[in-house]
Amino acid sequence: MPHSPHDSARPGQLMAGEMAEQPRVLRRLLDQGATPIREVARRIAARQPRFALLAGRGTSDNAALYAKYLLEIRLGLPCGLASMSTTTAYGARPDLTDCLVIAVSQSGGSPDLVASTAAARRSGAVTLAVTNNADSPLAATSEYHIDVLAGPERALPATKTYTAELLALYLLVEGLRAARGAGDAAGSNGAGPGGAGHEGAAAPLPELAAAVLDRADEVRALAARYRFAERMVITSRGYGYPTAKEAALKLMETSYIPALSYSGADLLHGPLAMVDNVSPVIAIVPDGRAGQALRPVLDRLRDRGADLVVIGPGSEVEAASAGFALPSGGMPEELQPILEILPLQRLAHEVTLARGQDPDAPRALAKVTRTR
Amino acid sequence: MPHSPHDSARPGQLMAGEMAEQPRVLRRLLDQGATPIREVARRIAARQPRFALLAGRGTSDNAALYAKYLLEIRLGLPCGLASMSTTTAYGARPDLTDCLVIAVSQSGGSPDLVASTAAARRSGAVTLAVTNNADSPLAATSEYHIDVLAGPERALPATKTYTAELLALYLLVEGLRAARGAGDAAGSNGAGPGGAGHEGAAAPLPELAAAVLDRADEVRALAARYRFAERMVITSRGYGYPTAKEAALKLMETSYIPALSYSGADLLHGPLAMVDNVSPVIAIVPDGRAGQALRPVLDRLRDRGADLVVIGPGSEVEAASAGFALPSGGMPEELQPILEILPLQRLAHEVTLARGQDPDAPRALAKVTRTR
Repeated sequence: MPHSPHDSARPGQLMAGEMAEQPRVLRRLLDQGATPIREVARRIAARQPRFALLAGRGTSDNAALYAKYLLEIRLGLPCGLASMSTTTAYGARPDLTDCLVIAVSQSGGSPDLVASTAAARRSGAVTLAVTNNADSPLAATSEYHIDVLAGPERALPATKTYTAELLALYLLVEGLRAARGAGDAAGSNGAGPGGAGHEGAAAPLPELAAAVLDRADEVRALAARYRFAERMVITSRGYGYPTAKEAALKLMETSYIPALSYSGADLLHGPLAMVDNVSPVIAIVPDGRAGQALRPVLDRLRDRGADLVVIGPGSEVEAASAGFALPSGGMPEELQPILEILPLQRLAHEVTLARGQDPDAPRALAKVTRTR
Repeated sequence: MPHSPHDSARPGQLMAGEMAEQPRVLRRLLDQGATPIREVARRIAARQPRFALLAGRGTSDNAALYAKYLLEIRLGLPCGLASMSTTTAYGARPDLTDCLVIAVSQSGGSPDLVASTAAARRSGAVTLAVTNNADSPLAATSEYHIDVLAGPERALPATKTYTAELLALYLLVEGLRAARGAGDAAGSNGAGPGGAGHEGAAAPLPELAAAVLDRADEVRALAARYRFAERMVITSRGYGYPTAKEAALKLMETSYIPALSYSGADLLHGPLAMVDNVSPVIAIVPDGRAGQALRPVLDRLRDRGADLVVIGPGSEVEAASAGFALPSGGMPEELQPILEILPLQRLAHEVTLARGQDPDAPRALAKVTRTR
């Protein structure tokens, strides 16, 4: 029997169901998506793009930002996030020869994304759509398409499509590396030159995701902390920064708590003034170089008496006010975002329920937002 | 006699003095800066960059975002904002042949900016520093340098260096257009093909800025509205979007009010849920295409009962709860940001004083933030 947000039996049931699907979605993408993604990567690599532009809105924009880090670090490709209004409002027509334009969208239906991707294709770009809907206008408009195979998403806050987009983009970039024979690129984590080895690095993800999702009680205990929070600051760096932005978006669109996200470096350039001993801060601390770069920021936050909750390695959680320890298991830093977001999605869900609201149906939002 | 923030006679005196200097700073830049900037532009254009990357932190990052719109719309150059940690934390070394890298910094002293600019130059980029300090490490590291000639800035919240950076970047892009003979680029405002005509468009700015700054009483009346605000949402689109981000940063670093900035399109993809009839919203409504693109967003905000304050044309202010009418005077849309920010700087100053705090010396901040 089909459900809509309006007939779900319990508040948040749809979102809870879709969060719980994530291990299966990741497994499906690894089993059925990896081969077509590798083929798309091979065809794109043959076009030898020299720059990449990424476009998305909301949750998909955060996935696009993750891809920006991957493309720059793992592939050495200079990247930008598209400002869509330059095309849709101002009619700019930059020369996009040698540019790869990647549009990320759960629905594949946002008119501004379709219009700016169509314009990019006319301007000479290699265009790729990454969506959860192979029949969407965006997929039709783009030269190449990757299906993230997450199945229908009905809760308004996107969860499983976010982690599926991250994994699809990871597989894409590993495919591009393999096709270029770029195993020696800067930032390599020491694995072999081929793509298969790195796809292999992703193999434990479904099981690790399931283990994280099983610890809902821990997240519920953390959520109690934010029952009356009037604002939150969420920070990270590098690969963890898209997680900070996505966690802030989830919290805002479900619980309505103003959640401000900053890279650790940007936080020190002004917004730190806002943090005091009644300001809750959540830091996503990747196990790797970004975590090291974040350490002075964490010290400054502790100095200011901030309530610091850490999502990251157990040792970092112990040095904080509270937190959620992620399984280490040698997962390379670039794959950790797929796990980091899981307790934060759940946190948004639990805080929203605790405040007597329904995470499935935030006021004012529609599932496909038709911005132009 | 030299002052430091700690011996200023009245709270906010330094910031007030620097805000008031802006017409003189803009005039100086037009009189003494335009020629050297045109020469830098000519030399950069001869290198025929095909892609631009922009880097900055805090206020200068917002100026960099403004330059991104200019470069894409006025020059048709695809652009990205640099994620500095890809270089500084992960050691990425992308191939930057044909890339123009523009680093924007008031002090020219931030180590991460210096390190990432040095790495970009080694990777083949044409590097340009835009700073308020010709003797800075950043100026020394970059192949080209533009001095924004704003004079020493001593208040912690940057004001005059922001508007000076905007104008310097505008003059740079107009110089690049002139050197390329790109008078027919998309988004042209119908002025002649040369750069001189567009530099001419900027000529009325100092006088218009002085007229806006003279209306401090109007801003003080608006500030009363936010005496007890617990959060604010600031939105715009296109050329106005950097203004929204900079206004949010000014409010946060001085008054400590959590101020969330979104492009109008992104606001509809999630954060709109946060806005209700007790949420103050400030919209910067450019007089032009971005203002038109923003109209459906303003309608949605009014539908939700938001307290909507508009900075923009008089007609838009009249349709809002309150606002500040900017002089029209036929200023092209791409120059309006230099005026839009002025009442918002003053608003941050007044709200902070009303809350009994000192805008000159926000807690926790240093003038040169040494992120790595």
